[in-house]
Amino acid sequence: MRILVVNGPNLDRLGRREPERYGREPLEKILARVRTRAGELGVEIEAFQSNEEGTLVSRINSAGDSFDGIVLNPAAYTHTSVALRDAIQAAGIPCVEVHLTNLYAREAFRQTNYTAGACVGVVAGFGAEGYVLALEALAAHVGRSRAATGKKKRGRG
Amino acid sequence: MRILVVNGPNLDRLGRREPERYGREPLEKILARVRTRAGELGVEIEAFQSNEEGTLVSRINSAGDSFDGIVLNPAAYTHTSVALRDAIQAAGIPCVEVHLTNLYAREAFRQTNYTAGACVGVVAGFGAEGYVLALEALAAHVGRSRAATGKKKRGRG
Amino acid sequence: MRILVVNGPNLDRLGRREPERYGREPLEKILARVRTRAGELGVEIEAFQSNEEGTLVSRINSAGDSFDGIVLNPAAYTHTSVALRDAIQAAGIPCVEVHLTNLYAREAFRQTNYTAGACVGVVAGFGAEGYVLALEALAAHVGRSRAATGKKKRGRG
Amino acid sequence: MRILVVNGPNLDRLGRREPERYGREPLEKILARVRTRAGELGVEIEAFQSNEEGTLVSRINSAGDSFDGIVLNPAAYTHTSVALRDAIQAAGIPCVEVHLTNLYAREAFRQTNYTAGACVGVVAGFGAEGYVLALEALAAHVGRSRAATGKKKRGRG
Amino acid sequence: MRILVVNGPNLDRLGRREPERYGREPLEKILARVRTRAGELGVEIEAFQSNEEGTLVSRINSAGDSFDGIVLNPAAYTHTSVALRDAIQAAGIPCVEVHLTNLYAREAFRQTNYTAGACVGVVAGFGAEGYVLALEALAAHVGRSRAATGKKKRGRG
Amino acid sequence: MRILVVNGPNLDRLGRREPERYGREPLEKILARVRTRAGELGVEIEAFQSNEEGTLVSRINSAGDSFDGIVLNPAAYTHTSVALRDAIQAAGIPCVEVHLTNLYAREAFRQTNYTAGACVGVVAGFGAEGYVLALEALAAHVGRSRAATGKKKRGRG
Amino acid sequence: MRILVVNGPNLDRLGRREPERYGREPLEKILARVRTRAGELGVEIEAFQSNEEGTLVSRINSAGDSFDGIVLNPAAYTHTSVALRDAIQAAGIPCVEVHLTNLYAREAFRQTNYTAGACVGVVAGFGAEGYVLALEALAAHVGRSRAATGKKKRGRG
Amino acid sequence: MRILVVNGPNLDRLGRREPERYGREPLEKILARVRTRAGELGVEIEAFQSNEEGTLVSRINSAGDSFDGIVLNPAAYTHTSVALRDAIQAAGIPCVEVHLTNLYAREAFRQTNYTAGACVGVVAGFGAEGYVLALEALAAHVGRSRAATGKKKRGRG
Amino acid sequence: MRILVVNGPNLDRLGRREPERYGREPLEKILARVRTRAGELGVEIEAFQSNEEGTLVSRINSAGDSFDGIVLNPAAYTHTSVALRDAIQAAGIPCVEVHLTNLYAREAFRQTNYTAGACVGVVAGFGAEGYVLALEALAAHVGRSRAATGKKKRGRG
Amino acid sequence: MRILVVNGPNLDRLGRREPERYGREPLEKILARVRTRAGELGVEIEAFQSNEEGTLVSRINSAGDSFDGIVLNPAAYTHTSVALRDAIQAAGIPCVEVHLTNLYAREAFRQTNYTAGACVGVVAGFGAEGYVLALEALAAHVGRSRAATGKKKRGRG
Amino acid sequence: MRILVVNGPNLDRLGRREPERYGREPLEKILARVRTRAGELGVEIEAFQSNEEGTLVSRINSAGDSFDGIVLNPAAYTHTSVALRDAIQAAGIPCVEVHLTNLYAREAFRQTNYTAGACVGVVAGFGAEGYVLALEALAAHVGRSRAATGKKKRGRG
Amino acid sequence: MRILVVNGPNLDRLGRREPERYGREPLEKILARVRTRAGELGVEIEAFQSNEEGTLVSRINSAGDSFDGIVLNPAAYTHTSVALRDAIQAAGIPCVEVHLTNLYAREAFRQTNYTAGACVGVVAGFGAEGYVLALEALAAHVGRSRAATGKKKRGRG
Repeated sequence: MRILVVNGPNLDRLGRREPERYGREPLEKILARVRTRAGELGVEIEAFQSNEEGTLVSRINSAGDSFDGIVLNPAAYTHTSVALRDAIQAAGIPCVEVHLTNLYAREAFRQTNYTAGACVGVVAGFGAEGYVLALEALAAHVGRSRAATGKKKRGRG
Repeated sequence: MRILVVNGPNLDRLGRREPERYGREPLEKILARVRTRAGELGVEIEAFQSNEEGTLVSRINSAGDSFDGIVLNPAAYTHTSVALRDAIQAAGIPCVEVHLTNLYAREAFRQTNYTAGACVGVVAGFGAEGYVLALEALAAHVGRSRAATGKKKRGRG
Repeated sequence: MRILVVNGPNLDRLGRREPERYGREPLEKILARVRTRAGELGVEIEAFQSNEEGTLVSRINSAGDSFDGIVLNPAAYTHTSVALRDAIQAAGIPCVEVHLTNLYAREAFRQTNYTAGACVGVVAGFGAEGYVLALEALAAHVGRSRAATGKKKRGRG
Repeated sequence: MRILVVNGPNLDRLGRREPERYGREPLEKILARVRTRAGELGVEIEAFQSNEEGTLVSRINSAGDSFDGIVLNPAAYTHTSVALRDAIQAAGIPCVEVHLTNLYAREAFRQTNYTAGACVGVVAGFGAEGYVLALEALAAHVGRSRAATGKKKRGRG
Repeated sequence: MRILVVNGPNLDRLGRREPERYGREPLEKILARVRTRAGELGVEIEAFQSNEEGTLVSRINSAGDSFDGIVLNPAAYTHTSVALRDAIQAAGIPCVEVHLTNLYAREAFRQTNYTAGACVGVVAGFGAEGYVLALEALAAHVGRSRAATGKKKRGRG
Repeated sequence: MRILVVNGPNLDRLGRREPERYGREPLEKILARVRTRAGELGVEIEAFQSNEEGTLVSRINSAGDSFDGIVLNPAAYTHTSVALRDAIQAAGIPCVEVHLTNLYAREAFRQTNYTAGACVGVVAGFGAEGYVLALEALAAHVGRSRAATGKKKRGRG
Repeated sequence: MRILVVNGPNLDRLGRREPERYGREPLEKILARVRTRAGELGVEIEAFQSNEEGTLVSRINSAGDSFDGIVLNPAAYTHTSVALRDAIQAAGIPCVEVHLTNLYAREAFRQTNYTAGACVGVVAGFGAEGYVLALEALAAHVGRSRAATGKKKRGRG
Repeated sequence: MRILVVNGPNLDRLGRREPERYGREPLEKILARVRTRAGELGVEIEAFQSNEEGTLVSRINSAGDSFDGIVLNPAAYTHTSVALRDAIQAAGIPCVEVHLTNLYAREAFRQTNYTAGACVGVVAGFGAEGYVLALEALAAHVGRSRAATGKKKRGRG
Repeated sequence: MRILVVNGPNLDRLGRREPERYGREPLEKILARVRTRAGELGVEIEAFQSNEEGTLVSRINSAGDSFDGIVLNPAAYTHTSVALRDAIQAAGIPCVEVHLTNLYAREAFRQTNYTAGACVGVVAGFGAEGYVLALEALAAHVGRSRAATGKKKRGRG
Repeated sequence: MRILVVNGPNLDRLGRREPERYGREPLEKILARVRTRAGELGVEIEAFQSNEEGTLVSRINSAGDSFDGIVLNPAAYTHTSVALRDAIQAAGIPCVEVHLTNLYAREAFRQTNYTAGACVGVVAGFGAEGYVLALEALAAHVGRSRAATGKKKRGRG
Repeated sequence: MRILVVNGPNLDRLGRREPERYGREPLEKILARVRTRAGELGVEIEAFQSNEEGTLVSRINSAGDSFDGIVLNPAAYTHTSVALRDAIQAAGIPCVEVHLTNLYAREAFRQTNYTAGACVGVVAGFGAEGYVLALEALAAHVGRSRAATGKKKRGRG
Repeated sequence: MRILVVNGPNLDRLGRREPERYGREPLEKILARVRTRAGELGVEIEAFQSNEEGTLVSRINSAGDSFDGIVLNPAAYTHTSVALRDAIQAAGIPCVEVHLTNLYAREAFRQTNYTAGACVGVVAGFGAEGYVLALEALAAHVGRSRAATGKKKRGRG
């Protein structure tokens, strides 16, 4: 099983950006955690970060060719990007949305969400831990779908 | 560590209620899964379901006396109950909200959410699996808080 | 054919509560009328009233086990209860909504309606007479469905 | 007792227009049902259909001269015509609104209702059957008013 | 004169629930203050608390049989319960609404108020002291009404 | 100078329609008053009433061929007809809007006004007297325009 | 009959303020026209202008002591002053609102109108001429009221 | 192939109505262009104009009996007529909406569009040329549908 | 303790202004009651009324120099004055808002409240009695603050 | 005449992205059709696609230097990009907007349109065919403008 | 060049009013800074402060007679005064709006702004420094206008 | 002191893009002015322009490493980019927002502002001059902060 982990704008600044809100771990460290858990689950991980809406769109809308699912933290684009939503639907593979903070407890403009409606589900508010939970949820979802359709695995032999 | 798992209105009908949307597992079977995982984590579970808003309020607002955290599926009350929100704040212990379906992909009136703003985080859209994820997220959160404050454990000896 | 007649909050006060608006007949007298008409139609009636949202939810979401349809006056919960809406859908049997007064000619907050969208239809504005009309509409609807699906009758022999 | 049954735009196409939504009975057949039930109740019926807002206004605002009540299905004008509302009030006789479908379960623009606020009550969602229910409700209403005011009958001798 | 003091959801937690907002006095102590002042005014008090919307509805809608007025803190139900509003009107006796905090200075969803429109007046923002003020206001109001109508006293001989 | 006086839906019922609101004078009597005043001002009047939106549109959009101005009471179409607004602009002659009642003091849906924005001005709330005022305002307006442009008079020689 | 003509903020600048919109006549000249017409009608006029909301409130709320009616151009306060509305109601005499321009054809914030709902009627869009029309409308209204109640005249002997 | 070209209110005034906005060509000349292009495409055209909402409804809802498609310029009724929308759906044949001007660049009330949602597509902003484009689009659409379903042609032999 | 009692626009007309709503007592009599109760509480009172928003602003924003608190009835300015809100905050002393009527049961535009959010609390709906209650609430509040901070008293020796 | 055809985000996935909605033709095939028709019209075409909002902005805002017009499918950026709107205006050449689907019949968030207001017109709902229609419309528009201004041609000799 | 510096309500309290938000400098000191910079620019300054909306209106609407521009801090009236907006337009000279705080980062009701739309520009969020910036911006603007129109200077010789 | 001047989409077209609105100066010339004034203030400037939202995000969120402040004209992204807002907060240095035009006097969608709430202040409406004012405001702000915290200078020795 191969999974793409996509991180959106400003997440390249994790650890230095408002650490009392987003935590002190840099993105690389969070991804290390995700890879560890992925190893236990027999899942291959590829990670990608960009501040560019269009670059994210390109990466996601073609992800169906080489991945089985996407873990996506769209960050600020969650609230403004119909293009990302369309890209998720174009990809044709399941996507799980993850947020470091609990968006429901923040500003009004963070209550608008274009991307989640095109995802399987959402995990929000658990900091870095949420990425691991999202990975587990996605892996289980892909496993169930395969069992149902008898589709063959991709990746890792 | 002791955790209260609270289920709101109509969840007593799980398995029979719109199974193509909510799945075919009855609530008891979902809770069995949660208990299994809790055993692995060394967590004690107590479960509670009610269709009554006020009964849920009573159970939650006093839960701080004997529990370390709450996993809550407020079901329909998510969208209409300020009383449950106040109860979560009155409890004074962390709460994780869980939903079987992805609320973002449903009716407009399910976009209003009074309870999540008082919670640590939200897990939505992964069916029964979401309860296990919520438990893991909550246990990790409580563990971290204890480490930070040096507070002693409750329950299980 | 067996039909459950459910009455919501404050309807236990009928006859004494703002009689110039809701009429001078107590609920018991309205139900007597319904029973008389039911007898003519060969329908068995069971009636239930509660001021508790959750108690109404419990009664309705399990009604599909022993009834063929529901006549429901949700009263004030019409405007605030997503839980009742979910309960109607959980029941899996047809429901007809009835109101003593014409909601369209009343306060703005009575224009919000969560429950009717989950019902077959609505009868409003005809006072106690509306219950008899709702019964007739529901009985005809159930009759037609049975004719279409060849399902066997429940109740009364 | 004399009652005018008024049908608005597109109802001349009943039976052919989206039959899975509005049923397969043409308007003439529905009116036949209404006339049968009217005969049993000793009520005289006159029926009128028009696609013209103004023609409907003219017919209704002068109906008080020769009728005791109106059964009205304003169809699409329900949502856009203040003129019909004014006409109902100008008529000075009771009006019952009927709809084939349950408007509460349809598009947002069908939630705006100008006419019902000027009516005695509303029957919606029971297909052709709803016309018979509306007739019964109106006849009972007119009967009660007469009893209260001692006003003499119109029509049928 | 007999007055019913009704307290809504989460008020059973007073003193322990967010004490920096709601104060450190438990409800029982606030009620003791109310009883002391009631004694001076020659008023009999009965107090009632519930977290259940429906139980509150039942208690209030029948209160007119044995009380002359109601002091009501609907807490969170203030913002969501049309049923409580209907219950106050069904009771047929004057009601004064009281809140510990100044709702105008809190969250947006606490600006919606269904119950106050059915009351004589509102006292908000004075903590426990507000209950005494509400009692005085209600007692004076009932006194004036009696003087105007010459109605006999209830209770205390 | 030739002026067209146009009256919209339900105004054919004046005198009989809610007389406590619209007065007891039939339309014919109001027009007589207008004609008297017109005679004093040397203005020719032609009057037209219809309940049909489209008939009103036809009459108004071609009025520029034989009239110098329009006094228009669009009645209920004021609030719903963009077509009438377009017709006034198509006519190319000044139009004064008149209403028997003060729309600002009535229902919310009467606060929407499509037609007035295409008129010279509005007179509202003075009953039948308002037609005379509107005539005077329009005549003065036309007079001033002619003086400015030196355009020749139409009608009456 | 004595009538108070009240002009609100910025009307002291008439003639110099955006003359292409408000005309080139100073306020004094408009008032002269009003006085001329008043003389013909046997009405005494007193005129008052202020840029102060409170000064206008004081003048209007006590006008009932010495006037039979008010012609009021509240200018910008039309859209923002609840205090002026309350003052008109406090005065207890009929008020007619006048505007130089057609508010319906201007900015969105000029569609909010607090004052007109407390007036007998409105005249808008006829420039200075509108004051004369408003005077005529008010004089006729007062005359009719007197005829109905037999109340004696004030002023001018 | 037979196509009905329907034009709504005020379009009878084309060429004379605000020519700087709608152009100087009368409707007849636009239709001549449409007929020329139709001849090249082997399509029969029938044209119809009315200012009456109901007359348009009647013509459209029965058009399915003798036409293969509709080119419709609903003009002002675009923004206010749910009845026309229902008529298009009742017709059961494809409809293409055309507007002379670009509605997106005009007043706010022209952003509301009831009819386009029931059409195959929209052509707006190209003046008279848009009718030819709409005809071409519709003819291509009908051709494709026929090819797909093997349905026989109507008209022209 | 010295307290300033401030009354806003139109309150100079109390007793004569809509007495069925605001009561028959003139402001002077209400203030006499307040002074009597103040005497019992050992509080000095100074009263001030103005119809001018700015005059009220001036009086309030400098009140902190010589008073310990403010009882304020902003009347209509409650709903429109951000300036008064800013003045209360500039004063730096506690303010209690009082209204003769229950604003929650009145027009929609009286539901907007700018001033209360800057006050300690609100008393509304008890007529003249409300001023006495507000005084008591304010005096108790100031007393408690002093006890907490050990600040010395102002006024009366 | 030289025309730039610009395609926005996710259109690189045409043919593979939700083919039942967007068709099975890849973008290259659609562009081939456009080129064929352009050849017949003597128009040179240059095509450009990007998923990047800013790259699209750059390409469009400078297009006026080497093109006579733009055919633009902004895809998801239609609904979120004020920057594209500004770019169209900065380009200073006519732009025609094209959409494969009928946006009016889709989700609510696709009703917001920032770009169309800066275009000459819109073609929507005709699938790939719409690009050809848009090209024809734009070529005709540019031709007319040239005729009017006598501006020389660009490109193709 | 002569410039009027106008300050609105509560600014007389600067230095004492919420100093952590508005700074500790009294208004007089801010004006001294403005005068110093004005001296360097060869500009004459006159300063004016009032808490009265109407007094501000009077001062501004006649300022065109003796000044070349206005620096205006409307304070709370920014959000509620259409009268001030009209006054700025009546003045006929350029106005620059200044705010001590950044309104975009404050309460929702401070996002409504009536006055800025009638100004040349806005400077907000720089405390006392903002007045100097506003003066510079206005002086430059007036200078450019003069250069363009060749208008003679006012004041200072 | 080192300051980054960032310009958003379409500003590369300044001088050629709608010059009557945005002026005839190209961006390079505006920056030259800024550099001149910076030299006088002893400030080092680095300028950056991009049409890409993500490129702007990258540049801003890491600017804290080598700059003391940012002057930002987000152009169209002001109204749609939550990502830029987050980037400003991630940067951790003060930012001043500048706009060439007065946004308050433009389209409704330019009233939405995501970025300004994260800035120190805003300068809008003064064309190119606004950049110089913004620089001065920012330099003064940074100077004051340093004075307060004793932090050392960056850049220029």
